[in-house]
Amino acid sequence: MSDTICAIATAPGGAIGIVRVSGPDAFPILRRICPRITEATPPRTALFTPITVPEGSPLDEALVTLFPAPHSYTGEDCAELSCHGSAFILNRVLELLTQQGARLAAPGEFTQRAYLNGKMDLSQAEAVADLIAANSAASHRIALSQLRGHFSTQLHQLRDQLLHLTSLLELELDFSDHEELEFADRTELLTLAQAIDTRVCQLADSFQAGNALKNGVPVAIIGAPNVGKSTLLNALVGEDRAIVSDIQGTTRDAIEDTIQLGGITFRFIDTAGIRHTDDTIENLGIERSIAAAQRATIIILMTEPGVPYPDIPLREDQTVIRIINKTDSFQAKFGIGIDDLRQRLINAAPKLSDTDFIVTSARHYEALCRAHDSLTRVIAGLGDNSQFTIHNSQFSARPNGTLDPSRIVNCPLPTDLVAEDLRLTLDALADITGGAITPQDTLNNIFSHFCVGK
Amino acid sequence: MSDTICAIATAPGGAIGIVRVSGPDAFPILRRICPRITEATPPRTALFTPITVPEGSPLDEALVTLFPAPHSYTGEDCAELSCHGSAFILNRVLELLTQQGARLAAPGEFTQRAYLNGKMDLSQAEAVADLIAANSAASHRIALSQLRGHFSTQLHQLRDQLLHLTSLLELELDFSDHEELEFADRTELLTLAQAIDTRVCQLADSFQAGNALKNGVPVAIIGAPNVGKSTLLNALVGEDRAIVSDIQGTTRDAIEDTIQLGGITFRFIDTAGIRHTDDTIENLGIERSIAAAQRATIIILMTEPGVPYPDIPLREDQTVIRIINKTDSFQAKFGIGIDDLRQRLINAAPKLSDTDFIVTSARHYEALCRAHDSLTRVIAGLGDNSQFTIHNSQFSARPNGTLDPSRIVNCPLPTDLVAEDLRLTLDALADITGGAITPQDTLNNIFSHFCVGK
Repeated sequence: MSDTICAIATAPGGAIGIVRVSGPDAFPILRRICPRITEATPPRTALFTPITVPEGSPLDEALVTLFPAPHSYTGEDCAELSCHGSAFILNRVLELLTQQGARLAAPGEFTQRAYLNGKMDLSQAEAVADLIAANSAASHRIALSQLRGHFSTQLHQLRDQLLHLTSLLELELDFSDHEELEFADRTELLTLAQAIDTRVCQLADSFQAGNALKNGVPVAIIGAPNVGKSTLLNALVGEDRAIVSDIQGTTRDAIEDTIQLGGITFRFIDTAGIRHTDDTIENLGIERSIAAAQRATIIILMTEPGVPYPDIPLREDQTVIRIINKTDSFQAKFGIGIDDLRQRLINAAPKLSDTDFIVTSARHYEALCRAHDSLTRVIAGLGDNSQFTIHNSQFSARPNGTLDPSRIVNCPLPTDLVAEDLRLTLDALADITGGAITPQDTLNNIFSHFCVGK
Repeated sequence: MSDTICAIATAPGGAIGIVRVSGPDAFPILRRICPRITEATPPRTALFTPITVPEGSPLDEALVTLFPAPHSYTGEDCAELSCHGSAFILNRVLELLTQQGARLAAPGEFTQRAYLNGKMDLSQAEAVADLIAANSAASHRIALSQLRGHFSTQLHQLRDQLLHLTSLLELELDFSDHEELEFADRTELLTLAQAIDTRVCQLADSFQAGNALKNGVPVAIIGAPNVGKSTLLNALVGEDRAIVSDIQGTTRDAIEDTIQLGGITFRFIDTAGIRHTDDTIENLGIERSIAAAQRATIIILMTEPGVPYPDIPLREDQTVIRIINKTDSFQAKFGIGIDDLRQRLINAAPKLSDTDFIVTSARHYEALCRAHDSLTRVIAGLGDNSQFTIHNSQFSARPNGTLDPSRIVNCPLPTDLVAEDLRLTLDALADITGGAITPQDTLNNIFSHFCVGK
């Protein structure tokens, strides 16, 4: 991080455009292109200054604010140039900055530097991208909570408890000759390990809900052709359609239909393939619908009077909403019953607790699962059923490859193996916050999903 | 302007999003939603603060800078909130601000307030929109020059000269009994008026070039079907095509093809209609081509060996570039001769002088023409040919409605009529800077073309 990076931090086309600069040469570079910036320019103060090309002709008049290290977003010397929002000007400013020695930032590189300089941990850094992408009240709330360190705090508490557990274990190791001490410690250790594991499991279990709230709760509408599926979808989407497209900055055709209800995004899995097809293709369509249903959290089974509901395999954890269309109480075509259906969808969506943190990242979920795996071995090693079979290596296996039962002895799990599993648990949790040494490819993978300028 | 306005000033989709607030209640409103902002918050200093909804849950963490009146963009109490660039967050911030008493700003309303508060004149305000829209070095340079007040300075100089002329005229009026004085003054007055008119004409004459540099120099490629017009256009547009579309934020299909050469935008007038048609339609197409050629500043007449150039009527002020395609020195298909053609286009484009200001606004051009009209009458009134015929009203017109020549007398233009024309000249120039009272519909027309947030 010995170099200075720059990027346009705003989308093209607005009234204002922001250029960000960060790195050891940020201020000397700015002094060369902003004549009013000097070594005496006060920090964090918006200064109105021309931006001037080396030949002396002005490029823009901008508000420039300097954020000296370490009190900046990246933890380095950092500056923001608030320019007129013209792509021409902003690109010329970047050109000027690179001519003066800065280089164009990679996606997420400012936040990556913030992480590497200890301004935030890795889960907070990831929350920055989530926060920018959040397009519902629910996903916004989770991302902001994560950015504000609520998840990190919980992980630090777990880490402190694990370190306490480790120190107790070391105590046992030191006093291993005192049998009466060991018994007391083992019970305490076990209780503590189980409490930690319960919390780890709670967090891991929240991922399904978190993922649904972040990316939209997947809903599949399943029904025979012409029962009114697309009419229902249109009725549900209603006027929100344009708004949703607008927020996501993409055309409707390219994405699945999404609607916002009660601050939650619902994502309707595309089952359009089963409409208007001949019989042969239709069978393929039905297979596609069944596959879609497998991915959904909520399934709307739709039929019409006198016709049985579609018979498809369902998972236990799926919520099924049954609708008989074309009746007095439900007519998708005329919007009858749609408000009630919307409420049922909201009720069926994962709940966002006021107090509990919800995991939304597959990376975090995977780390929590690893922590749980190690903790399970720790608990097995500590508990009453902690006698586990090991093969005494001084007795060889029988010629047919099985172990000779008479040669297997039951013995307590060696304390150093428990300690090793505790270390693996700590490592797994540290991977979430990036407290341990995070491999560069993990960092690259995380930050490449950021937009440039963040 | 007793109310407080707010708007998102950045385009949706970036890493950072800026919300602007301006008006008498800007700071009290912000204190209610940003807990760290107090009456003691220093001006122009970026403060990191949560933005909090009334129930107390945070919406974002933002950098907020306060710009107290009068040292702000609008001249009012003004603030910028630099938030995470999420459409969800930015719209919620607007919602919060309006709940607290602000209202959504109309397009250009911040700049309109800046004008009404005397922070800039009308031509500078218009330059803000031009600067944001500028997508070539030439249009950017003109807009920035206008924003920095170079045009206003010239207009003020003309105004000072006109006021000087007026005072000299009044002097003459006061000393009208002294014939020897009058003669000297009249010569001086005439010289002065002619100098002013010369400058007014220079500025008015620059509009054609200015308009071309601002909106793109119109070019028409005229040639028989299959001579290679579209191939030539594709060769010229080359890799710039995507870049141009990107900058304008619109799809290529919706706009005429534009290319940037030497910092100048060239706009190729659509003559696609004459391609691939049958004979009857083709005649219509040829008519369209001729009409297109009338609008162009540069005409590329294109033919192939052994075929005469298309015979179309040309204006004297049009530059004609003649190309024989499918020869050793020019083959559009293989890009042969294209670089040379690009240079010829650059040479044929209006030149942007280093020192002279160029008028780009039709509104300014119209005002300059009005100023010239009045000045022409002033000069006629002052000059040797200042004897003009007036009808002595004490003699009535003849029964057939014509004037009796014997009743018409030649007399010097009355000084108060010259003074009136001088006043009209001053008014016309004042309309450009908005120094006179500008009608509200003129202001609405100007600022409605701005983007929201500026």
